[in-house]
Amino acid sequence: MADYSFEYFTVQFPTEHQYVAHVEINRPERLNAFIEVMWENMGKIFNKLSTDPRVRAIVLSGAGEKAFTTGLDVKAASEGLLSSDTKTDPARKAVAFRRHVTTFQDCITAVERCEKPVVVALHGFSLGLGIDLSTATDVRLCAKDTRFGVKEVDIGLAADIGTLSRLPKVVGNYGWVKEVALTAREFGAEEALRVGFVNAVYDNREATIVAALKLAALIASKSPVAVQGTKEILNYSRDHSVQDGLRYTSVWNSAALQTQDISAALLSGLQKRTPTFEKL
Amino acid sequence: MADYSFEYFTVQFPTEHQYVAHVEINRPERLNAFIEVMWENMGKIFNKLSTDPRVRAIVLSGAGEKAFTTGLDVKAASEGLLSSDTKTDPARKAVAFRRHVTTFQDCITAVERCEKPVVVALHGFSLGLGIDLSTATDVRLCAKDTRFGVKEVDIGLAADIGTLSRLPKVVGNYGWVKEVALTAREFGAEEALRVGFVNAVYDNREATIVAALKLAALIASKSPVAVQGTKEILNYSRDHSVQDGLRYTSVWNSAALQTQDISAALLSGLQKRTPTFEKL
Amino acid sequence: MADYSFEYFTVQFPTEHQYVAHVEINRPERLNAFIEVMWENMGKIFNKLSTDPRVRAIVLSGAGEKAFTTGLDVKAASEGLLSSDTKTDPARKAVAFRRHVTTFQDCITAVERCEKPVVVALHGFSLGLGIDLSTATDVRLCAKDTRFGVKEVDIGLAADIGTLSRLPKVVGNYGWVKEVALTAREFGAEEALRVGFVNAVYDNREATIVAALKLAALIASKSPVAVQGTKEILNYSRDHSVQDGLRYTSVWNSAALQTQDISAALLSGLQKRTPTFEKL
Amino acid sequence: MADYSFEYFTVQFPTEHQYVAHVEINRPERLNAFIEVMWENMGKIFNKLSTDPRVRAIVLSGAGEKAFTTGLDVKAASEGLLSSDTKTDPARKAVAFRRHVTTFQDCITAVERCEKPVVVALHGFSLGLGIDLSTATDVRLCAKDTRFGVKEVDIGLAADIGTLSRLPKVVGNYGWVKEVALTAREFGAEEALRVGFVNAVYDNREATIVAALKLAALIASKSPVAVQGTKEILNYSRDHSVQDGLRYTSVWNSAALQTQDISAALLSGLQKRTPTFEKL
Amino acid sequence: MADYSFEYFTVQFPTEHQYVAHVEINRPERLNAFIEVMWENMGKIFNKLSTDPRVRAIVLSGAGEKAFTTGLDVKAASEGLLSSDTKTDPARKAVAFRRHVTTFQDCITAVERCEKPVVVALHGFSLGLGIDLSTATDVRLCAKDTRFGVKEVDIGLAADIGTLSRLPKVVGNYGWVKEVALTAREFGAEEALRVGFVNAVYDNREATIVAALKLAALIASKSPVAVQGTKEILNYSRDHSVQDGLRYTSVWNSAALQTQDISAALLSGLQKRTPTFEKL
Amino acid sequence: MADYSFEYFTVQFPTEHQYVAHVEINRPERLNAFIEVMWENMGKIFNKLSTDPRVRAIVLSGAGEKAFTTGLDVKAASEGLLSSDTKTDPARKAVAFRRHVTTFQDCITAVERCEKPVVVALHGFSLGLGIDLSTATDVRLCAKDTRFGVKEVDIGLAADIGTLSRLPKVVGNYGWVKEVALTAREFGAEEALRVGFVNAVYDNREATIVAALKLAALIASKSPVAVQGTKEILNYSRDHSVQDGLRYTSVWNSAALQTQDISAALLSGLQKRTPTFEKL
Repeated sequence: MADYSFEYFTVQFPTEHQYVAHVEINRPERLNAFIEVMWENMGKIFNKLSTDPRVRAIVLSGAGEKAFTTGLDVKAASEGLLSSDTKTDPARKAVAFRRHVTTFQDCITAVERCEKPVVVALHGFSLGLGIDLSTATDVRLCAKDTRFGVKEVDIGLAADIGTLSRLPKVVGNYGWVKEVALTAREFGAEEALRVGFVNAVYDNREATIVAALKLAALIASKSPVAVQGTKEILNYSRDHSVQDGLRYTSVWNSAALQTQDISAALLSGLQKRTPTFEKL
Repeated sequence: MADYSFEYFTVQFPTEHQYVAHVEINRPERLNAFIEVMWENMGKIFNKLSTDPRVRAIVLSGAGEKAFTTGLDVKAASEGLLSSDTKTDPARKAVAFRRHVTTFQDCITAVERCEKPVVVALHGFSLGLGIDLSTATDVRLCAKDTRFGVKEVDIGLAADIGTLSRLPKVVGNYGWVKEVALTAREFGAEEALRVGFVNAVYDNREATIVAALKLAALIASKSPVAVQGTKEILNYSRDHSVQDGLRYTSVWNSAALQTQDISAALLSGLQKRTPTFEKL
Repeated sequence: MADYSFEYFTVQFPTEHQYVAHVEINRPERLNAFIEVMWENMGKIFNKLSTDPRVRAIVLSGAGEKAFTTGLDVKAASEGLLSSDTKTDPARKAVAFRRHVTTFQDCITAVERCEKPVVVALHGFSLGLGIDLSTATDVRLCAKDTRFGVKEVDIGLAADIGTLSRLPKVVGNYGWVKEVALTAREFGAEEALRVGFVNAVYDNREATIVAALKLAALIASKSPVAVQGTKEILNYSRDHSVQDGLRYTSVWNSAALQTQDISAALLSGLQKRTPTFEKL
Repeated sequence: MADYSFEYFTVQFPTEHQYVAHVEINRPERLNAFIEVMWENMGKIFNKLSTDPRVRAIVLSGAGEKAFTTGLDVKAASEGLLSSDTKTDPARKAVAFRRHVTTFQDCITAVERCEKPVVVALHGFSLGLGIDLSTATDVRLCAKDTRFGVKEVDIGLAADIGTLSRLPKVVGNYGWVKEVALTAREFGAEEALRVGFVNAVYDNREATIVAALKLAALIASKSPVAVQGTKEILNYSRDHSVQDGLRYTSVWNSAALQTQDISAALLSGLQKRTPTFEKL
Repeated sequence: MADYSFEYFTVQFPTEHQYVAHVEINRPERLNAFIEVMWENMGKIFNKLSTDPRVRAIVLSGAGEKAFTTGLDVKAASEGLLSSDTKTDPARKAVAFRRHVTTFQDCITAVERCEKPVVVALHGFSLGLGIDLSTATDVRLCAKDTRFGVKEVDIGLAADIGTLSRLPKVVGNYGWVKEVALTAREFGAEEALRVGFVNAVYDNREATIVAALKLAALIASKSPVAVQGTKEILNYSRDHSVQDGLRYTSVWNSAALQTQDISAALLSGLQKRTPTFEKL
Repeated sequence: MADYSFEYFTVQFPTEHQYVAHVEINRPERLNAFIEVMWENMGKIFNKLSTDPRVRAIVLSGAGEKAFTTGLDVKAASEGLLSSDTKTDPARKAVAFRRHVTTFQDCITAVERCEKPVVVALHGFSLGLGIDLSTATDVRLCAKDTRFGVKEVDIGLAADIGTLSRLPKVVGNYGWVKEVALTAREFGAEEALRVGFVNAVYDNREATIVAALKLAALIASKSPVAVQGTKEILNYSRDHSVQDGLRYTSVWNSAALQTQDISAALLSGLQKRTPTFEKL
């Protein structure tokens, strides 16, 4: 795992959960607030995990008791912005901002694009970028104490790293999303569960991570051909018509159905034993 | 109704519910598991019902106490697959699989494409293909004992007959769908109601079918021009932008608003009597 | 405000809520049923509010205790239809109907297109066009006594002013929408809250309007650059893929991030005082 | 025709061409360069023509020998821009620019949205906005002396009134469009004919207008139900998949095929006489 | 070939061209004008050819010297329409028309959907439906004497069997398509070649069919995996963004690249001999 | 330029053409056939050029007299494929192929995504990947001796690096593309010019490169804000509806119109001198 040594992150392969990787944001002294190197590293980590055959499911969590992440490190960001701000032409500034936002978005999209399912364990402050980030994962679990918030309007901007595009499709309700995004009001675990933003609520950070690892381990015990196909087809279908989704599925499965995993799974089912599947 | 004689299905036109057809999957000795002739027949039945003027709403249910359907008859499918499997070129196998999946999908899509609304009454095991099938209907009701499951990953494949494209749009929540599709865990009636997969839960199979017939009869009592337009425009809108949906609606209604059903409905409203509508 | 004098509407700028406009449908003697001049005026009002720098958030409500609106004034509509109906060629009638529906839709779409967020306060009868109208707003609040209904099939037509395109995306669930749209059955505040059609329920009309004004005032206190960008990007994202949404966001924010509102907001945050933002 | 009195335009209904309207840009002393009131008037004229039953086809041309139009009146535009430019916040300026561009685009789109086909007769300088404008028409004819040019990059901006979206779909070739749009180089009638930007070339302005009127008259002699349906379906199909185009066509024609124009046309065909069609 | 016995068509497998099927419209005494059974049979034939392993490329032509087809048999169509026309409600008539058009479209779309490339050899009158039909093929060749025409507006209707959706994408130019579709003017082989509607022009019907067979034979000599993948990906790409096209291609080829045809083709290339490919 | 040192490529900034970069594929001893490191390097080069302020337009050419490129180095590719081919499960092989194709596509898409316009100078053999590559550039010029060919079906596969998605949109004609892609027949400079694949033909390789540099220099002399906006909006519009294109354009230009380049360009125009534009 030496190859997963990235500043501000720990990446572990817990021995008790085969094929599971555990990624943790690790800047607890600043409540896991993100600076540029962190989202770049996050992008790199998930790009690597995407094709690492040792991994079939991933858990993402935040170190420290207080926060999953408070979001962007606004102080660092505004300093960076100010110091680099030598351009005066608004059109040229716009190009610089657009490139910056695009690069930033792409690092977070790496989580969605990752071929392996990602379960996020949220706790404490999970604000701003924390929402962007968790909407790019596949399943969200949280601790009772979690404080969520689409906080961007409170600092004068529209959320631009994915929340406004993904959150409505995660919860499927535009009215609630508009309210929390336009007011920046915080909400808790119970409300997050009720609107379907999280799948389940646990007592505290530790219990949430344990549950996330267990869920990831369950997913990792299934055929990786089946699991990764399921993630890909669900992501494709979100952005296409049903007819297009069906067509894509039939082409995808034209190769996937040739897998030996199917007979392995069927046979194990008959023999009441756990199947093993070839690396992927 | 001699013309609706298809193996493994019964199709009835209950006399107490005018304009309602009741389709029942009828292979209870195998828990209504599907073999190829069954989905072919299902396609044929719904294609016929779509233009049958005796029908304005349809109920779909499963015979036998134990299951709506356990899904694909895996035993039959794997035998079929093995016996026919003389191709060795993976690209040629892929063509065969793609054609097979496409044909299969098309039979299930017949339920969605059917011009008349379809209410499904679910009970007992409603697994795998049972989910694909019910996402293609318009309204889902279920009995308390129903056991749902997107079981495909447990047999080594990504669900390919419609669940992954339609289920997220039925319930409007990607987080929950990803969890149940990636883990294949079963869920019950209460959870199905909570996430909006079913509209209501009833005591048992019989009560569910009674409720479904009543709901279908209510729909069948309305103007068929209005009802069928509503189904079509909702289906179109699911796969298009709001602006496209509005444009399509205005063109659709440019003919539909010329119907005599409107004055018939208005007049009946004033006269407090039940309107009758010309055949469609 | 003399410039907001439109028949059947009152438009007020409540002094206690800076930057908030309050639009009220005002034909209580006919339960706020809509005649042609009303939707035309509604379109005009929201087109004006969209660029009026005095306004940063809008509340929409209905005058009178009994109804937000019972929808289209069917009596007036059918008289109009009959008197003008000198065409006999169905294709020419279709053109007339299509133009009519398109113009009507466009007036209601003005609410969605309005650059400022719109909070609707619903009460009493909120039927037919009342649903079309409220799905075009951003946040829906309602009184306990509200009676909702997609009533169009009961008068022989498919809803064509927006409900069938927008309602499923508001609540994110096709099963429930199909049931209420195909049966025209009414539903109350509790059900509306449960399915996510409204964000909150209040004791009566007055309390709902007070809450709506308070919510609008909260939104109006934020940076208008941030708020209006958030509304626009959410609306865009509803109709596009996530990838398209991200791209549009990055271009939008390439200008918006140059706003002085960001430093104003950050500074106010540090100084624990309320920021002020330049007109927009 | 008093109702078509708009500054900088003449609108005529030539008596020798039944059902044809002739719109002429009329500011020859400034080479028909556009100021704001002109595009606003152009929008109003085409919105009116769209539903005027006296009109079934439209010719658009420019007065004076030298130019169809040299495009935007840059002098007026830059003065307007400067005088109104009191905003200093780049985000607020961006809002003002976006509203301005959107309004401007909408006036030009009125030509495309107009239900009646529009034939443009081009001559002399046809630069900048002249290209935007002519891509919104249905058929382009030009005089031998026409000088075309997508000139916007020469004044430091990307063409934003429609050329970049419509021109590639008019000529169907991205390589040529990119060259002329990125270099702003002018091109003549012959090249315009070769790449398919114009349908035919005539000796001079007069001959081009005569040909355009003749073509418009031919179109105006056909069933307006058929002609307007053809324009609408072609415009819809440009922006949708073939499958979507077929679906829209079948719905459109479900009303249009009920027209009496079909039997009128068939009968006239058999009797070798000119059919007449009811007003539309 | 007994299984390809369909009224009004001949289907041959010319011995001198391996893997080529030759379909001929065969109602020369009525200039190959289409009656309902003919388009139904055309749909059936191409659906069968699509999966017939004896076929890798198809030629479509018309019997008789005078016409490929004059299009719909208007006399038969209007009689059919009149006799069946017992409905008086315009909305119900609209449903009947829509179902009819949809069914008709689907038979012609069978040519496009057919997995094997189709080369059409056009000659003589090729009007109306003849254009719809040939836009659904892959490559168009024609004889010098061919008379083309989108004739529908001349009989009072907008072309609804595919021309308006497919023709612009075949030739890539909306200006020319609008002119010929709005005026119904005929055009000849030379113009068809110039605008790219046909790929080549030959001296007469016979020479065109010979050339079409030769072209089909050339295509049929290539790897069917490669050829059928190429047709499918090109059809998919026409209706999707480039990014979507690339994604679909990578999934399609993930199976297709596993074919033994690649090594067969490479080896034959090295050994300068004709490769043979397994059935598909 | 030390930072543009990539194996198999030369990158130059010709002193006589300000702001122009010249990229040359440099493996002439193998006719510039591509091996993996080459497309990786091509991706890296264009990603860097995209944001390099020294560059405003780019020329791409091939070293050596015989070929721009013969495409993929099939020998190297098949060896690589064979040696790495230890997987036996077709579904797992499919994953490997899909990842490989996706990575490969992404390197070529870097040319399209590059913010600066790219002019390609083609000569000699320009086959297979040479077509994929040149369809990702903005303008294509070629020498008289160029031999083009979509050769992929001749080696048993469907072209998968972009040709099938981009070529039809470059030339705007599906009939011609289908013929050359399904037959793999080669075509020359004259045909390429006629169908619009290239913009102009020159006497030989040298003259083509000179012309390409001149064209690039002309583009590089314009406002980079205007030029890069034009490229971006044209690329966006290719994949979206006209309505979407207009909306994106208005948002894009809301920042770009604030550039000082506009007054710089206007002033230079009045003063008949060459404008200079700030770095971008």
